[in-house]
Amino acid sequence: MATISTSDLLQQFKWRYAVKEFDPNKRISDEVIEVLEESLVLTPSSFGLQPWKFIIVGSQSLKDQMPGISWNQPQPKDCSHMVLLLIKRDFSESDVDRFIDCLAEARQVSVQSLESYRKFAGGFIAQGVSEGWIERWSTHQVYIAIGQLMASAALLGVDACPMEGIQSDAYDELLGLDSNEYHVVLGCALGYRSEGDKYASMPKARYTKARVVERL
Amino acid sequence: MATISTSDLLQQFKWRYAVKEFDPNKRISDEVIEVLEESLVLTPSSFGLQPWKFIIVGSQSLKDQMPGISWNQPQPKDCSHMVLLLIKRDFSESDVDRFIDCLAEARQVSVQSLESYRKFAGGFIAQGVSEGWIERWSTHQVYIAIGQLMASAALLGVDACPMEGIQSDAYDELLGLDSNEYHVVLGCALGYRSEGDKYASMPKARYTKARVVERL
Repeated sequence: MATISTSDLLQQFKWRYAVKEFDPNKRISDEVIEVLEESLVLTPSSFGLQPWKFIIVGSQSLKDQMPGISWNQPQPKDCSHMVLLLIKRDFSESDVDRFIDCLAEARQVSVQSLESYRKFAGGFIAQGVSEGWIERWSTHQVYIAIGQLMASAALLGVDACPMEGIQSDAYDELLGLDSNEYHVVLGCALGYRSEGDKYASMPKARYTKARVVERL
Repeated sequence: MATISTSDLLQQFKWRYAVKEFDPNKRISDEVIEVLEESLVLTPSSFGLQPWKFIIVGSQSLKDQMPGISWNQPQPKDCSHMVLLLIKRDFSESDVDRFIDCLAEARQVSVQSLESYRKFAGGFIAQGVSEGWIERWSTHQVYIAIGQLMASAALLGVDACPMEGIQSDAYDELLGLDSNEYHVVLGCALGYRSEGDKYASMPKARYTKARVVERL
């Protein structure tokens, strides 16, 4: 049932690194971009609620404006596609209803038959809203998505540089999202490493398994 | 360079689902568990700082005590291995120093030569401590790890059930971590689906790509 050997999986996770210099002349093919988009869509999320949206920027004129709002890091400009991961603002029980409609359609059942699930997930979300942790919860979900995205990219031989520290509000403005229902929280530059990137050949620094993994 | 075809990648992400019923008689082989552990170790993190630890519970007597602290969900008991993802409490600049030692050793360079990186990452962490967001930052990193873990499991044909809502403090107590430097934040049950799990054959409910992905 496995579709990859254990050695290939680990080899690709060792091959990947946070790219410092992308080759600005190498573009990811449409086929691969579509698969990476699909992999984002398929990311698991809490209760299946998908409180997110993803913007894939291939436009060079937009990418050229990004280093200035990313602490002058060149990756968004030189990469092939800059992926932005957004959370929905003001996520609420009505978003649970929206998901229940989607679930009912997928399973070809009535919305009524999903009432207990709607109540359960809706109660959870209502609690998050009243206790003020709903944005934190949504943010956690896009971190799962960036994890799945980076793993997928590595396995498909695509390079990546996750960018946590981008200036979210400036990205919202650049993309015309100021008053939109979604808000940028994370970025991930995708493309192919430049031959001159000296970081590519540096050994990966990870704590040993003995130090961070315990079996009980 | 890709080690998996685009169709196999998507097929496995469609194959996976949050398992409700594990087959308690099926165990993950040692080889595969070791690879999943390695995949956790290789997870990318902010500045490479790895503010985490992972506990892999195969002991049945420990697993038997988990449903009671997981809202009576049976997955931790019936799965093959219950993975717990922990963050380091009180992460601080001294943890940056610890990572710089690891980095210097991996790259075979002096600690002094990494001084500018130490200052940069250390300044970031010091800010997180003084502004009170360091635990949130650490938590984000383990969400990347669970994303990579779930993707890896799916590609290796291993079933999973991510468990966000476990009672962290009770898990700390069960594992004897009350006053430990690490704290459980997330769980992920791994194993093989039971033939009787009706959720296995239900269609996946995801918003369409047109709804959650935008290209610019």
